[in-house]
Amino acid sequence: MKRRIFSGARPTGRQHLGNYLGALQNWVSLQDEYDCIYCSVDVHALTTLEDTSSLQTDIYEMMLDWLAAGLDPQKSILFVQSHVPEVMQLYTLLGMVTPLGWLLRMPTFKEKVKIQPYNVNYGLVGYPVLMTADIVIYKAEVVPVGEDQLPHLEMARAIARRFNNLFGDTFPEPQAKLTSFPMVLGLDGKEKMSKQLGNDIEIALSPEETIERVMTAVTDPARQYRNDPGHPEICNIYRLQGYFNPSQLDALAVQCRSAEIGCVDCKTLLAQKINSALEPFRERRAALAAKPQYVKDVLADGANRAQVIARETLTEVKQKMGLI
Amino acid sequence: MKRRIFSGARPTGRQHLGNYLGALQNWVSLQDEYDCIYCSVDVHALTTLEDTSSLQTDIYEMMLDWLAAGLDPQKSILFVQSHVPEVMQLYTLLGMVTPLGWLLRMPTFKEKVKIQPYNVNYGLVGYPVLMTADIVIYKAEVVPVGEDQLPHLEMARAIARRFNNLFGDTFPEPQAKLTSFPMVLGLDGKEKMSKQLGNDIEIALSPEETIERVMTAVTDPARQYRNDPGHPEICNIYRLQGYFNPSQLDALAVQCRSAEIGCVDCKTLLAQKINSALEPFRERRAALAAKPQYVKDVLADGANRAQVIARETLTEVKQKMGLI
Repeated sequence: MKRRIFSGARPTGRQHLGNYLGALQNWVSLQDEYDCIYCSVDVHALTTLEDTSSLQTDIYEMMLDWLAAGLDPQKSILFVQSHVPEVMQLYTLLGMVTPLGWLLRMPTFKEKVKIQPYNVNYGLVGYPVLMTADIVIYKAEVVPVGEDQLPHLEMARAIARRFNNLFGDTFPEPQAKLTSFPMVLGLDGKEKMSKQLGNDIEIALSPEETIERVMTAVTDPARQYRNDPGHPEICNIYRLQGYFNPSQLDALAVQCRSAEIGCVDCKTLLAQKINSALEPFRERRAALAAKPQYVKDVLADGANRAQVIARETLTEVKQKMGLI
Repeated sequence: MKRRIFSGARPTGRQHLGNYLGALQNWVSLQDEYDCIYCSVDVHALTTLEDTSSLQTDIYEMMLDWLAAGLDPQKSILFVQSHVPEVMQLYTLLGMVTPLGWLLRMPTFKEKVKIQPYNVNYGLVGYPVLMTADIVIYKAEVVPVGEDQLPHLEMARAIARRFNNLFGDTFPEPQAKLTSFPMVLGLDGKEKMSKQLGNDIEIALSPEETIERVMTAVTDPARQYRNDPGHPEICNIYRLQGYFNPSQLDALAVQCRSAEIGCVDCKTLLAQKINSALEPFRERRAALAAKPQYVKDVLADGANRAQVIARETLTEVKQKMGLI
């Protein structure tokens, strides 16, 4: 029997290259080896979202990207978190065994307090509890995570362990599966690629839009003129060439250092490579977008399948806690 | 149309005179004037309960007392909190609009931290959020509370107001209806009557057990001998005579001060008065206990009726928050 993986992502709408090279391609490749459950965590989004008016569109657009990128509803369960509301029950119950101190000490919590000091709400503190409920309600054994998510996974393990100690063996302690992809920087060449920072390239852009976006990228700031020699080792465009144009990478480094190739040409080349790599994805996406009921059907089916598992776990938890 | 009342109590098992004279009689009398929803809050109990093995028995015994005392399932909705799990969803969602600071500043939270410093869990902090969800999921307009619960009700009003401001008018701000009953002291004559402190008299005791319990009560500590004059104004037995034997109250004060009546006689008289006051209750209780399925049926019916209202509110909340 395959081991079960759970992973979730906030409904951020159209996905960008960072999502694609980071989580998404990894998720696609895990589908054969594991029993995968992938979730758009809309309830988590509420912990930081003040304007929720675009939530449904964001879920829809993200799902189109997920499906077109190769997440396969025949292999994996794809669903929206709030469509299986049992997870909010488990969150409530796990909150009874989660020390407040653990949550207040989380580095991710402290960071968020810095970002939104005016909106430190109760749900924000409980983020790791909800994430734990997400994972353990499906008794997932493996969670693909980036380094930055490791503290959350440690917390999930600790909460599962504590519940097991108090009420008897119930949840497997989920194991981290670290993704090998490094952080993808945004067009500013400084920060992680992020929709919020506006430094992203959406994978669903048209080829022309992609070229336009790539052209805005910061390269080597020391290379002010076409004839200045470049420093590929500090250039984000060069780094992106590594993903989309690996065969030319060495040659490009030489051409950049000798100023044989300019940034505009280098960017044009990268944009072409991105466009050809994403062409099949974009075709699939257009086909899926032509039948909007399809995404709804996939999500309804996914929620039904997830709910069967979730209900079973929740009943077990309620029995063990004495609620039934 | 009648205004709606919501009130809840922890499943503490058999009820004592403090519950009876405080909440319970008040609840019974509210049934004609209001549309009442009374709830045994088992999820709240988990915030402080470490051993949950008696939870089901406690709910059953409490319900027997409630029904025998006159809570009428034909008039009111009687149910168990976790049987309408929608409230845990609303708790999760209201947590997104509740500032953590509000919760940490609650005097009741600070008290509980003192009582159980080793078990300050996330659920304990969120107690007022769950209580708010309890009330507003039924759009209750009135909440009968004691003085000590006023901060919780203020919090419920604040959370409801905040939600309404952020997402549009949804919840009425619940109004406090202060009960006129003063605090009933326990057999120690010092602390509030409480099962946990073991200073209580259960209303379901037999007449003989009631006499035994009353005999253990602390009276006037200055009255060491039968012939010492007593001080009824500081005597808890005298205070209890006020509830169960009001017509003899003035005479008893005179007899106590002149040492005409001793504490044993005074207690015997009180126990007799309690027993005759509770006789019809105890008969009804025995009859209900003879058909254990009855309580289950009442609770199932109550949960169904409560769930219809809860689901409607939750759908409205999810729509307003952009989740559907």
